[in-house]
Amino acid sequence: MVILPGGDEPLYVAIYRQLRDQIQAGTLPAGARLPSRRALASQLGVSVNTVDGAYSQLQSEGFVESRPRSGYYVCVIDALQKLSLPGRRPETQPAQPDAVAVDFRPGGAAREKFPFSVWQRLLRSALEDPASLERTAPQGDPGLRRAVADYLYEARGVRCSVEQLILGAGTDSLLSMLSYLLPNRCTVAVENPVYNQAYRLFARMGHPVRPAEIDKQGVLVEPLEALDDVLLYTTPSHQYPLGLSMPMGRRVKLLNWAGSGRFRYIIEDDYDSEFRYDIRPLPSLQSADENGRVIYLGTFSRSVAPGLRVSYMVLPPELLRLYEAEYRRFSSQVSTVEQLALREFLVRGHFATHLNRMRVYCRAKRRRLVAALAPLEGQIRIIGEAAGHHLTVQAVNGMTERELCDAALTHGVRVYPISPYFMGPCPYDGKVLLGFGSLTDQQLEQGARALVRAWQR
Amino acid sequence: MVILPGGDEPLYVAIYRQLRDQIQAGTLPAGARLPSRRALASQLGVSVNTVDGAYSQLQSEGFVESRPRSGYYVCVIDALQKLSLPGRRPETQPAQPDAVAVDFRPGGAAREKFPFSVWQRLLRSALEDPASLERTAPQGDPGLRRAVADYLYEARGVRCSVEQLILGAGTDSLLSMLSYLLPNRCTVAVENPVYNQAYRLFARMGHPVRPAEIDKQGVLVEPLEALDDVLLYTTPSHQYPLGLSMPMGRRVKLLNWAGSGRFRYIIEDDYDSEFRYDIRPLPSLQSADENGRVIYLGTFSRSVAPGLRVSYMVLPPELLRLYEAEYRRFSSQVSTVEQLALREFLVRGHFATHLNRMRVYCRAKRRRLVAALAPLEGQIRIIGEAAGHHLTVQAVNGMTERELCDAALTHGVRVYPISPYFMGPCPYDGKVLLGFGSLTDQQLEQGARALVRAWQR
Repeated sequence: MVILPGGDEPLYVAIYRQLRDQIQAGTLPAGARLPSRRALASQLGVSVNTVDGAYSQLQSEGFVESRPRSGYYVCVIDALQKLSLPGRRPETQPAQPDAVAVDFRPGGAAREKFPFSVWQRLLRSALEDPASLERTAPQGDPGLRRAVADYLYEARGVRCSVEQLILGAGTDSLLSMLSYLLPNRCTVAVENPVYNQAYRLFARMGHPVRPAEIDKQGVLVEPLEALDDVLLYTTPSHQYPLGLSMPMGRRVKLLNWAGSGRFRYIIEDDYDSEFRYDIRPLPSLQSADENGRVIYLGTFSRSVAPGLRVSYMVLPPELLRLYEAEYRRFSSQVSTVEQLALREFLVRGHFATHLNRMRVYCRAKRRRLVAALAPLEGQIRIIGEAAGHHLTVQAVNGMTERELCDAALTHGVRVYPISPYFMGPCPYDGKVLLGFGSLTDQQLEQGARALVRAWQR
Repeated sequence: MVILPGGDEPLYVAIYRQLRDQIQAGTLPAGARLPSRRALASQLGVSVNTVDGAYSQLQSEGFVESRPRSGYYVCVIDALQKLSLPGRRPETQPAQPDAVAVDFRPGGAAREKFPFSVWQRLLRSALEDPASLERTAPQGDPGLRRAVADYLYEARGVRCSVEQLILGAGTDSLLSMLSYLLPNRCTVAVENPVYNQAYRLFARMGHPVRPAEIDKQGVLVEPLEALDDVLLYTTPSHQYPLGLSMPMGRRVKLLNWAGSGRFRYIIEDDYDSEFRYDIRPLPSLQSADENGRVIYLGTFSRSVAPGLRVSYMVLPPELLRLYEAEYRRFSSQVSTVEQLALREFLVRGHFATHLNRMRVYCRAKRRRLVAALAPLEGQIRIIGEAAGHHLTVQAVNGMTERELCDAALTHGVRVYPISPYFMGPCPYDGKVLLGFGSLTDQQLEQGARALVRAWQR
């Protein structure tokens, strides 16, 4: 056996590697006995300890086995079968050049007004705390949860103890957690149209999923009457994506429905309730829930920053018991240092100030866009509440959804069809979404001018 | 109708609130007509605009409806039914006083050696980047993924493109994602014993889960031969919690099994491969996989800090296609600013330095604990590799697991039974875990002295 010097690596590694290669190549066949440690050491002019190191490594990896009072023997190792792979390893696709000048993508939020230096200061000071390296409680930092509970009570009338509040790394993450908590037999009824991640998620997690149809007041309660063991996903403050608000009468019907059956729960996704521009929003559905049937859901991604992965969920008592029995053992998914900084952002009043500023700013943006679209009066109608970060536009000049999108695109502007938000066929035509959250005033006006040209009939 | 002055709130809110209360109390019954805006304004001595504001709010909330050329009428709103709640709202339980002086809880990691000031500096500088407020790509920051891919190749022989690497907010979060990607019919076979979150998670997500029995070499392959459409969860580098390493022969058998059936995948959870103290660990199972059947999983929670919620997963090409079709639309759950800081931590070599230091430090800790337990020779045996952050102890003096735990506790020390890690009955008795990752030298020695007294027969 010849052992070649191994360059930079320790001698024992060189010996180990060359023996291993010979075993894998079959030069040292299964059952062969390795030279004794002394013999090899003397042959190579190295210490017995060095050979020992190599043999231990080979033994630990299962290439050789030690037989007491006899020595080291090469193990039987099957040949590794190799199939032909179904295609090459994927690599990045070059991005396609984009001819779109203004993209009214929904979901964006304005960043110009974010108090970046305040945030940096709070995060720097959170960093000074060695606790920032530790995991928080599974539900999240208690101080942050207290601050969120206070805010939700003030702003949305949400009534909950700190124990009922659970922080997660984004809405999808909390929906996953809920899906985990629910018995598998539990049906999930989703408002139709809907934030489409929600139904994909529940369906993939093994729950039967069905649409819950809506009218102008929101979810229709009658079709739900036959269902028990059911979770209803809804956005009562600002229906996503249609932008409608659920009136009090429908809310009470819905709460009474949930309170009167077996295991009926409502997820109230209050995703952008911070952004109402004309009148104060109705308090949350959760605030009127006397029976512990509403799961309240919200996020800081829109109101603070998308890069901040902090969302929250209020569990009613019965589900909280399931959480405690089933889920509390899982670690929190939320960055500790960001939780600490966010706690101070809320406690010291920066969040309230920021929201007020953002509301003024986004209202002005929305008004600017609505005004710039005024020449289209008689051609389109803007539906839904004066709220959030997108407009829902209804054509009244006979244009279809497809025509609205295509005409916009030929004028360099992208608007978004509403039909993909439906489970099953879209019951009406001629509606599109215009997100304005992340566009500058100049982009808004440029985009609107192009749409006026594109949609004028 | 009497409207009382409303304190600090705007006049229109006071009017709105009092009308709403009267509607809810039934004083203004369903169908009643509100006074005209002019009449009420003149009666209250306020402007018509103020009354307008109150009526709009009531209308928007669905308490009244407007009938053209007629006025505002109170809507029919069902009474809210109230059930008796099953118990009070939960509040915090006071923590029980703890008589345990030394807690050998597994899962902890040493923090004293963490280069906190370097980390703070990197995080501060990541904060300067406005991109820290934005969401990263769904799979995570490409620069960080490149750095992780390079590290995994160097340290563990993992071969993957940046596209195959997906960052998540902890191992549980990535297991959820996998569960989402798998067809529901897919069975999950988990090594027994096992990190028990893994099987709970898959079971709750609707997958049939079954144990995969192990011997001293790891997972037994023969019982798996009958299974297709299956995902096997295993920890080949350092079996959790027994601490064994899977030898090469078994690895090849396992890879050949996975390569030869329909939809057979292996999750290789390489949770603490950074911490080997005697010999270099065998390269990852993934590195020997020629058929694209291994999902490689790891985390920075142990090697950097538990408060940092960053873990990673390498998907083989076929599953990557499922991810791209099904999951890429979901946002990343990982904090952006921490991704940026971690990227620099890796790229600038701090991670490598830190790991080297930690390895030396943890090895010393482990040796100290083993040495302090030496008086128990003949009473206990330490099994498993010299690796990780816990010892697995086997009683050879006839003590049962229960007796080991109870005797320790009466001496003020908590050790952890191994049976909870089993699906079904634990096939042997007298094994416990001693986590040493987060204990000081003094605690280690104090704890070991107590165990010597507790376990001496």
